[in-house]
Amino acid sequence: MNGFSLNQATTKRWPLDELVAGCVAAGVPAVGLWREEVAEYGLDKTATLVRDAGLEVSSLCRGGFFHEADWYDHNRRAIDEAHTLGTDTLVLVSGGLPGRSKDIDGARRHVADAIAALVPDALAAGVRLAIEPLHPMFCADRCVVATLGQALEIAAPHPAHAVGVCVDTYHLWWDDQVWDHIAAAGRQGRIAAFQLADWITPLPEGVLLGRGLPGTGCVDLGRFATAVRAAGYQGYVEVEVFHEDVWSRPGGDVLDEAIRGYLDLL
Amino acid sequence: MNGFSLNQATTKRWPLDELVAGCVAAGVPAVGLWREEVAEYGLDKTATLVRDAGLEVSSLCRGGFFHEADWYDHNRRAIDEAHTLGTDTLVLVSGGLPGRSKDIDGARRHVADAIAALVPDALAAGVRLAIEPLHPMFCADRCVVATLGQALEIAAPHPAHAVGVCVDTYHLWWDDQVWDHIAAAGRQGRIAAFQLADWITPLPEGVLLGRGLPGTGCVDLGRFATAVRAAGYQGYVEVEVFHEDVWSRPGGDVLDEAIRGYLDLL
Repeated sequence: MNGFSLNQATTKRWPLDELVAGCVAAGVPAVGLWREEVAEYGLDKTATLVRDAGLEVSSLCRGGFFHEADWYDHNRRAIDEAHTLGTDTLVLVSGGLPGRSKDIDGARRHVADAIAALVPDALAAGVRLAIEPLHPMFCADRCVVATLGQALEIAAPHPAHAVGVCVDTYHLWWDDQVWDHIAAAGRQGRIAAFQLADWITPLPEGVLLGRGLPGTGCVDLGRFATAVRAAGYQGYVEVEVFHEDVWSRPGGDVLDEAIRGYLDLL
Repeated sequence: MNGFSLNQATTKRWPLDELVAGCVAAGVPAVGLWREEVAEYGLDKTATLVRDAGLEVSSLCRGGFFHEADWYDHNRRAIDEAHTLGTDTLVLVSGGLPGRSKDIDGARRHVADAIAALVPDALAAGVRLAIEPLHPMFCADRCVVATLGQALEIAAPHPAHAVGVCVDTYHLWWDDQVWDHIAAAGRQGRIAAFQLADWITPLPEGVLLGRGLPGTGCVDLGRFATAVRAAGYQGYVEVEVFHEDVWSRPGGDVLDEAIRGYLDLL
């Protein structure tokens, strides 16, 4: 169990204090948090709650969304929040195409420039930016970084302790180049986070809330776990699932199933 | 107008004889046909209708679906039908993962083996197999071939006049490697078909019927048209859109809008 982390988005409707108590009771050592939920509970109050419970914060989701006008202030605050919460990992989702733009190359260059602009802040705060490629179905409206290879290219100019990548099985499983990219990310010391979710069909309208708990879909999760370990990753395995059917269940039940899915990989 | 083709799926509810008359009236030189609709109207009757109208058949959709048990007979028949309809291009959608399989590499190897098995039949019939990569969101249940690079790898062992690739803007626009792949496909003489559709959001449930008519979304279609021409492609530009809102409109109106979208690229 010492490598498992519950990402808060998996049990979105579980109140944070109950989630923390549930994780402690189940022997879970870490949680991944989301900025909106943290803000709702209170930033300092969340930091105290989690620290007093003896839980680590494996990552904070999410910075990025560089297509928005206020991306710099937004991400500066996210870095500060990560620091306050005691996590060294801020997951970045790059954002999509701005407005009515069709210039995907330009949007990707802007993401690279924005991340470069944030590196000094990240270094000063001791927080690593973890670029997360999302599945290409999110390329237009949520994340122009669609492969691990692109994430590594954007990270390349920066020190590995400042900019890493997030390997999420849901987003990357279809890519035949992902195994080479994971190995390369490992050699560069850039694997900053590893998130588990399974691919299930049919996809729901809007496709955001279509993920399955580990073991319910068609992704060879064990191959990913083996690959990131072989690449030298020793951090947490975060289960991060968004699905209305999962959110409507009691948090403790979902946590139990997430843990079983994780243990099946070992 | 002499490079334009209307793919029948764009005006799915337009009866075939009306579609053919509408295309002739609009000066459209070619149509792309679908096996199910052809079977419904009658194969020989369709071939006669289209030929007598002076229309070319730019492609027949679709063969493939190699995850199904009867893939060989199914594809043999599809090749024969393409020959009967007078088209030299059979578009192949590879199919997804079989049953509860998580072995995506195995599924891709099977696709390569199946296509190799069909090459003699394709050569004998004078029909070229056009491997169509679909967007990675279809990887699990519809098409394990997710990039143009993969399609080219599968085509590589075979003569270019036997196995080509289909470049569809909807499926490939997110891929930063697609420009290199189009150029490579051109050098190999493998671009067998070029299909236009635009990317619009939000995606509908099941994601199959989410395409936009050219010009309604975020894809830089002009860049694709320029790239395939620069790669030596001189075949038809087929507009192929699946969307409930498009299907519910009169066929002639949709044809007019498809033609305008095509002319905007020139």
